[in-house]
Amino acid sequence: MDYTNHRLARQIEFLMEIDKLKQIFRQSFLTDKTRNENDAEHSWHLAMMAIVLSEYANQPDLDLLRVVKMLLIHDIVEIDAGDTFAYDVKGYEDKEERELQAADRLFNLLPPDQAEEIFALWREFEERKTPESSYANALDRLQPMLQNYFSEGQSWRRHNLTSDRVLERNSSIREGSETLWDFAREMIRSAVDKGYLTT
Amino acid sequence: MDYTNHRLARQIEFLMEIDKLKQIFRQSFLTDKTRNENDAEHSWHLAMMAIVLSEYANQPDLDLLRVVKMLLIHDIVEIDAGDTFAYDVKGYEDKEERELQAADRLFNLLPPDQAEEIFALWREFEERKTPESSYANALDRLQPMLQNYFSEGQSWRRHNLTSDRVLERNSSIREGSETLWDFAREMIRSAVDKGYLTT
Ligand SMILES: [Ca+2]
Repeated sequence: MDYTNHRLARQIEFLMEIDKLKQIFRQSFLTDKTRNENDAEHSWHLAMMAIVLSEYANQPDLDLLRVVKMLLIHDIVEIDAGDTFAYDVKGYEDKEERELQAADRLFNLLPPDQAEEIFALWREFEERKTPESSYANALDRLQPMLQNYFSEGQSWRRHNLTSDRVLERNSSIREGSETLWDFAREMIRSAVDKGYLTT
Repeated sequence: MDYTNHRLARQIEFLMEIDKLKQIFRQSFLTDKTRNENDAEHSWHLAMMAIVLSEYANQPDLDLLRVVKMLLIHDIVEIDAGDTFAYDVKGYEDKEERELQAADRLFNLLPPDQAEEIFALWREFEERKTPESSYANALDRLQPMLQNYFSEGQSWRRHNLTSDRVLERNSSIREGSETLWDFAREMIRSAVDKGYLTT
């Protein structure tokens, strides 16, 4: 196609490149247990959670648009870097390096002003220092737990996870939402009762 | 699970019910042509488009959070009502009725105040009377065109579509964005040149 609008051409190129996020599969299962979830679906689900659960963020009056933007873009780097399973110690060793390179390639498909905006959102999400990013990260931890619990522990059981590891790995939910952390702990207790997690 | 927070219990029930949107498949293909796209992926992609392309909305200074919310929720009714292909005349006869029933069941899983908010957003999207909903609808038309064009016309060719029908069906893009409508027409011309659409 010959684009008459060159700024739009770069934006469309980025938007078509991120179509690949639909093929990056995660460890989590759909609740119907038929298959693993992909990153695009996960990101949509997180954005919906951000909207529906915003009243539980520790900090009232969050900038919800910024939360939603962060959640929509936070996994785009996995197009190049791949999904690193939350409990994969080895994978975490070079995760930062791999993801930074990915961000550099992918976000810079956009015009510079927009590349900078998305980069800033991604960094904010990763650093977890603002109320918006703490809440967004809490949801990013909670969503796989929900997928696990409502798929009868599919991924937890495959990886033989204990309740202690799940509690430890997800305790930062508390920084974003005390209420959701209380709920997550109830869910973990119930998962042990049902045999989805060992102790 | 015994929820100690009953409002949260309803919100979680809704959030787990909408997991089913990941299994509602559309006519559009992924750009790698390996499979059809589902509604959750489509909704994520639209929200990304809304953010990246907002400068092209006819009306400047849109409420972008409302646009994004509309796009994230607009297809949830298809969990019950199914996807109606844009060029399926028969399917459109009872689409409104089917979708209204679906909205009634699905949105009312939420606490009443939130059910009302989502209902209002869905109605606004369907009615296309506000600048936000015109822009959101423009993107909902443009995204399948992009998926088609960048998958070498997979779905257009399967349905033997002509450029006239695609132009007619999508002309309302203009109400949301003149710039994106110009771009859509360029894309249709190019699709004819490449043999993805007949004349
Ligand atoms: Ca994530």
